[in-house]
Amino acid sequence: MLSIQEPTLIIDKKKCKENIAKMNQKTLQNQIEFRPHFKTHVSLEIGEWFKKIGVNKITVSSLKMAQYFSNHWNNITVAFPINILKIDLINELASTIQLNIVVENKKAIQFLKNNLKYKVHVFIKIDAGYGRTGIHYSKTKKIAAFIQEINDAKKMKFEGFLSHAGNSYSAKGKKEIIQIHKRYSKKLIQLKKYFISKYPNIKISIGDTPTCSVAEDFSWADEMRPGNFIFYDIMQWAIGSNSLKNIAIAMACPIVAKHKKRNEIIIHGGGIHFSKDDIHHPKTEQKIYGLLVQFNKKGWAILPQKNYLKKLSQEHGTLSVSKKIMKQYQVGDVIGILPIHSCMTANLMKEYITLKGRKISRL
Amino acid sequence: MLSIQEPTLIIDKKKCKENIAKMNQKTLQNQIEFRPHFKTHVSLEIGEWFKKIGVNKITVSSLKMAQYFSNHWNNITVAFPINILKIDLINELASTIQLNIVVENKKAIQFLKNNLKYKVHVFIKIDAGYGRTGIHYSKTKKIAAFIQEINDAKKMKFEGFLSHAGNSYSAKGKKEIIQIHKRYSKKLIQLKKYFISKYPNIKISIGDTPTCSVAEDFSWADEMRPGNFIFYDIMQWAIGSNSLKNIAIAMACPIVAKHKKRNEIIIHGGGIHFSKDDIHHPKTEQKIYGLLVQFNKKGWAILPQKNYLKKLSQEHGTLSVSKKIMKQYQVGDVIGILPIHSCMTANLMKEYITLKGRKISRL
Repeated sequence: MLSIQEPTLIIDKKKCKENIAKMNQKTLQNQIEFRPHFKTHVSLEIGEWFKKIGVNKITVSSLKMAQYFSNHWNNITVAFPINILKIDLINELASTIQLNIVVENKKAIQFLKNNLKYKVHVFIKIDAGYGRTGIHYSKTKKIAAFIQEINDAKKMKFEGFLSHAGNSYSAKGKKEIIQIHKRYSKKLIQLKKYFISKYPNIKISIGDTPTCSVAEDFSWADEMRPGNFIFYDIMQWAIGSNSLKNIAIAMACPIVAKHKKRNEIIIHGGGIHFSKDDIHHPKTEQKIYGLLVQFNKKGWAILPQKNYLKKLSQEHGTLSVSKKIMKQYQVGDVIGILPIHSCMTANLMKEYITLKGRKISRL
Repeated sequence: MLSIQEPTLIIDKKKCKENIAKMNQKTLQNQIEFRPHFKTHVSLEIGEWFKKIGVNKITVSSLKMAQYFSNHWNNITVAFPINILKIDLINELASTIQLNIVVENKKAIQFLKNNLKYKVHVFIKIDAGYGRTGIHYSKTKKIAAFIQEINDAKKMKFEGFLSHAGNSYSAKGKKEIIQIHKRYSKKLIQLKKYFISKYPNIKISIGDTPTCSVAEDFSWADEMRPGNFIFYDIMQWAIGSNSLKNIAIAMACPIVAKHKKRNEIIIHGGGIHFSKDDIHHPKTEQKIYGLLVQFNKKGWAILPQKNYLKKLSQEHGTLSVSKKIMKQYQVGDVIGILPIHSCMTANLMKEYITLKGRKISRL
């Protein structure tokens, strides 16, 4: 086992590569582009694992992230309604890479029309039922007018429709994920059908981790951009996207106190390490902030689910554990926790340590 | 108004200084030490604002933070059950500053006894009713044995009892805070009384922001170590610690989309900027992730509370706004949000921008 002194985010490279390979396989079977979302790992080094299997296009969630990756990737989609206040960075990036952006309102399109110095590729953000943002898929007139306006602009090239089936995040199990996938497919197929005669190269870009992990038929889409799947996490497990053994990162936390009578162990590891995301355990309905693992020579073994991270303060974590675990672990030992939301945990931890003890940095 | 391009954490230095002065005044009136907790701001520069009013002792929540401040402060308490895995750093710090640590179990005390190379000052962590960690205040025999063991060790000096009235964080209003304060006072006074004849220099260290902000009588304690009060936040406001105008930090976020029909505005500003803490609004009981402010030349003005941050994804924030605000703000404008939990938001943002546009860095 590694020498751990403080909360440390451990990465199992083998599991990551298996998760990547599986998703890549799905895009190959469906003959669609794999444009993985890098917002989860945000690491140049981890990015190389994708390059090795032939990926050459990526997705990010901010212009800042696009900038971080822009020396290593020359085709980047910023899957977020474009922030026009960053026009200087947009122009800087567009001068060196194929920058694909997302628009959903007239104001942004007109601003870009007047301020772009280099060509950008433009997706229209479509709300196919999630209700967070984007133009509702049924508003074909508005969408048509936007396409027209984009194509009329000198420095913009219309690419297609980008959508995110974000309501899959509230699914409970594979069956519900498939239902959401079917509803989404139908709407986006319909939208593409409506526009394809006029715009034969129109693309459909989709990509939430639950539907991409569980559904099989994506042949109707043109590219897939899931992100979380590289690590997965407890939230995705509860949704039905993955099994616990697919989770590729675990927090290693020192034990600082034990409270036998109430079956609680206090760890150094709090909200500033994990983030405050929680879920209700699918079976016990208990609110949990993580599930426990035991580190070993090869990586980690999953502990029974009655052991869990119960509470988080800024630096403290409170574990609820069985009598067996209470006996097994002492103050000064290190215990592992599978995080609820790997994107948020990795963002807080700022680096990964491999099972061999090597550091992998990130933005 | 400042030139904002992306989510930016704005600090109102004047409000911070007022919050500091008020808390300092309370410690002077009670004739107790002011040992502010620096876990909220974690900034050398902000630390200097405390030095200017005569503060020379501080609190932090990790050894890492103690290390960060150790070139500028020579008396630091790490108010967290000591993590013995960091013995090398403990010794390094203890060789140069007065390092005060917190213990609550035999294992840690014995480990320190065998491994300390320099003298450390030791507080015993007392659980006076919060139930997170520490030795229960009623266990006087166990506490007496620990004191004995600490004083028997060559490199440890017993200082007193450290406690955190953390259940004040679930209070609803000043009245309840005062009740909690009274319960805590009683228990800690009783504990001190029990030990004072044998240990006449024994200290009582207390310090949650709600009781320190609202209660008046701390003359029974020896030092006060609140932290959050420098910025305050919406959570503290809901508890009853402060008014909205005392909140000294606000996030500035670009508007990227508007959805008039559902009265929602989408901002760039999500979980990786705010953290995912939420509260239920004390009046409407609506789940909120922040309240809105309008930036102006002098700082910001608080907008009506029917406008709030409703939802957070990784980078997206969804505001629920009135028709008036919907009309007033356009895509490309910047709007302000008072955070739910300033400690967590500041930790994510990693720096502050003053109202004059100057950057203040932090760990």
